[in-house]
Amino acid sequence: MRIAELSRTSGVPVATIKYYVREGLLPAGVRIRHNQVDYSEDHVTRLRLIRALIDIGGVSIETTKELLAMLDAETTSVRESLGAVFYAMGGRRSSVGESELQGAAADVTALLSRREWKITDGSPALHTLIDVCAALRQLGHTDVVAAMDEYAVAAELIATTDIGLVRGEPTIERMTETAIVGTILGDTMLAALRRLAQEHVSQDLLAETGRDVAQ
Amino acid sequence: MRIAELSRTSGVPVATIKYYVREGLLPAGVRIRHNQVDYSEDHVTRLRLIRALIDIGGVSIETTKELLAMLDAETTSVRESLGAVFYAMGGRRSSVGESELQGAAADVTALLSRREWKITDGSPALHTLIDVCAALRQLGHTDVVAAMDEYAVAAELIATTDIGLVRGEPTIERMTETAIVGTILGDTMLAALRRLAQEHVSQDLLAETGRDVAQ
Repeated sequence: MRIAELSRTSGVPVATIKYYVREGLLPAGVRIRHNQVDYSEDHVTRLRLIRALIDIGGVSIETTKELLAMLDAETTSVRESLGAVFYAMGGRRSSVGESELQGAAADVTALLSRREWKITDGSPALHTLIDVCAALRQLGHTDVVAAMDEYAVAAELIATTDIGLVRGEPTIERMTETAIVGTILGDTMLAALRRLAQEHVSQDLLAETGRDVAQ
Repeated sequence: MRIAELSRTSGVPVATIKYYVREGLLPAGVRIRHNQVDYSEDHVTRLRLIRALIDIGGVSIETTKELLAMLDAETTSVRESLGAVFYAMGGRRSSVGESELQGAAADVTALLSRREWKITDGSPALHTLIDVCAALRQLGHTDVVAAMDEYAVAAELIATTDIGLVRGEPTIERMTETAIVGTILGDTMLAALRRLAQEHVSQDLLAETGRDVAQ
């Protein structure tokens, strides 16, 4: 199909498609005449994935590029490919003090030991978690840090579902895509479910309080 | 204290502090001489909160401003204040097709009914969830949509902890801050815990597979 049709089918403007090709997110089309470039269904699929990661996942162009490179790479093992995906979506860095960072590192180490999680030292998620705990300590929210065990139990449930979904896929390529899509769109899904569940739970609690008052 | 000391104490550059004041994120200092403005400990606290939301929570300047306005507003009820916070952190919009949106809306309605969650129609989280499901359908990942019940169970656990933390706070102002910090920094914490739990769970599963092969 021509670029105009690719744009109509995918809902992505022509200028944006050209930008993605220039940035290496989308493979170039095949030139079939000197003034005509042909695009395939694969381009439609890839464009949808790009838009989902950017629009729904809130991921940057740069990270999307890295994730797609992983998807296109010939990886030898699921574990390698999964590890790479999870690591690419690692950490935000913060600017908290050294003493908060040390306290936070101790909080996180104790949590990992209680949960018996064996985590590679260089894990960006480990650094992100330490940064979050340090920021919470600095803000005086040690109550949130103390609740981390409860959040970790929920995270284990989530991860078990995640890994089950990845393992259910027939090919390595599809496993990698599920790891990317499930983790990034999944973060947005989980944040939305969390807000909805908060509304549900706070109604329930208020209903209880209401009954207490009425009695 | 002077702005230079505020900068040293908070770790935020002077130019950034001035920018936050101009943007209305940080209250101006008190002018004590024609060339000297005084800042208090409250400024340090507020700066830490701003940096945590932006650096750790990945929130925009605009949303940070809205959240701080909520924190400063005299709200009459916890529920109102909580609702406002959760709603402000609502949805990303996507560009998926109408038929995927309808299917996704049906998926989400069925989920809410199975979980007996009563949610306000205008909830931005509801729209985000529908958008995510529509994107997943379009990408052919109905397996992830089908796993939403399992994610919802985990989200309920998380929300119960969330609401418990908020209810444990002594004042409305502190409740609002916990709702903001706990939800935004909490999303980052949960994403990090999810990555770590994924590493833990995939090791466990690989260890099992290893044993199967060895037998």
